[in-house]
Amino acid sequence: MVEGVDFRLDWRAFDFRTLGRRLMAINLSDLAAMGAEPRHALISLCLRPRLPVASITALYRGIREQARRHGFTVAGGDLSRIDGPLVLSATLVGEIREGRPMTRSGARPGWWLAVTGNLGNAAAGLELLQNGQRATTTLERRLIRAQLDPVARVRAGKILRASGIRVAGDISDGLASEVIRIAQASDVQAVIIEAGFPFDSAMQSEYGNRKARLLALRSEDYELICAAPLRRIKAASARLRSETGIRLNTIGFIRRGRGVLRVTVGGKIFEMRSAGYEHFR
Amino acid sequence: MVEGVDFRLDWRAFDFRTLGRRLMAINLSDLAAMGAEPRHALISLCLRPRLPVASITALYRGIREQARRHGFTVAGGDLSRIDGPLVLSATLVGEIREGRPMTRSGARPGWWLAVTGNLGNAAAGLELLQNGQRATTTLERRLIRAQLDPVARVRAGKILRASGIRVAGDISDGLASEVIRIAQASDVQAVIIEAGFPFDSAMQSEYGNRKARLLALRSEDYELICAAPLRRIKAASARLRSETGIRLNTIGFIRRGRGVLRVTVGGKIFEMRSAGYEHFR
Repeated sequence: MVEGVDFRLDWRAFDFRTLGRRLMAINLSDLAAMGAEPRHALISLCLRPRLPVASITALYRGIREQARRHGFTVAGGDLSRIDGPLVLSATLVGEIREGRPMTRSGARPGWWLAVTGNLGNAAAGLELLQNGQRATTTLERRLIRAQLDPVARVRAGKILRASGIRVAGDISDGLASEVIRIAQASDVQAVIIEAGFPFDSAMQSEYGNRKARLLALRSEDYELICAAPLRRIKAASARLRSETGIRLNTIGFIRRGRGVLRVTVGGKIFEMRSAGYEHFR
Repeated sequence: MVEGVDFRLDWRAFDFRTLGRRLMAINLSDLAAMGAEPRHALISLCLRPRLPVASITALYRGIREQARRHGFTVAGGDLSRIDGPLVLSATLVGEIREGRPMTRSGARPGWWLAVTGNLGNAAAGLELLQNGQRATTTLERRLIRAQLDPVARVRAGKILRASGIRVAGDISDGLASEVIRIAQASDVQAVIIEAGFPFDSAMQSEYGNRKARLLALRSEDYELICAAPLRRIKAASARLRSETGIRLNTIGFIRRGRGVLRVTVGGKIFEMRSAGYEHFR
């Protein structure tokens, strides 16, 4: 995470402890998408000499919170001076005791695509942050938290894998870019059906259906997407709901071909291009 | 590695391919100090949008050279935009199939300290670089290479461990700081005897004994230091020399107490403090 690109110290809701949690959430979400258990973290920081030590103590408090919650240790790392933006880098090593990690490849025509949780909350939170608004309602706090302090779906990932799902990814870089990667890695076409998007009901009624869908398309939600035959999706969905309360919603399907199509609620079909964050545009 | 702190694009001898090799050498040296075999690398880069792609191709060529040489794969990583200095971060995961890694703790009074190879070459090379000199002699090229393009002692580390040595470290952050760490981790005192410092003979005759010792004290040589009973040092030394041609020289000993003492050639004794690179001084 690079200061000025991935976070800003002048955001109203910014604090280093939350940043520490988010640094780990990024990596936790990648492990979650493989169905792996986090084990050891390496933290490398590039810091300005004048940064208060209290900021780093707070950062590590956030990292430690994630370590406790998810049962990994901070095993090492590195520390450098930088005369420029802060750079925080984490490597998280995970373990799969039996079987294989879920990957992006292997999705087959006839399979369905499903996502955990809700779409669009992180993008709504980012809008609030960029407008400099202070969160006043429960909903606003939840939306800002989805952007600044996301919870990685580590347990959900393990349950998906244990339910026999083999193809998955995480959509924290955006739904479109992850579906494009799955379609490419599997050499198939993916079709996304907007009408199936799952929303936080308070967000949906606050923003309306149309805006909620727009937010979902550019959001960086810490949710998982998976592809599997329908019976597996259903089995995983039932298990996920009973063990964690998290929903798994079907949002599209796989067919022969290439690329990703998006079917709007009005029935129009568009070629979907990456709407996630692209660093070098 | 942070631009402007760990490297400068305006160094006469700078190129990205060598930088890629050095990025990996830093990590390889840490694994070497544990006696581990490198397996998988993760590379995270923060790049300015206007940096030529050819620079990154060259960087990866250097990384790949190390991967081939030491038998590891580049398994992943991350890419970020930065509006500031380049930041290159690598994580290298290694493996030890049997037994335990060498560590800094466990050195006992009565043991001896020994280093692989020669001391001081990297500091001599850094001086040449900082003076903006172009290397004209074989020696000068060797010295600059010791600073810019060091070779990690991966095979030597494995041989030390296989010879039954349990305590080791790498001195690429400076001899003093590593000996201090070993003394602290082992709760003992270490005594360094300058008269025992091993030098590149051409460097020694070019710079003289006195200057060579000064260079050795502040050098960041990619060599290993180990502590063990004398018979183990001797056994490791014989095996190291016969299998790799690398020498292992005794440069001090361990006794009860704390801290690190340095015995000069004149017989004076100084408390040794970290003379290695300190990022936040």
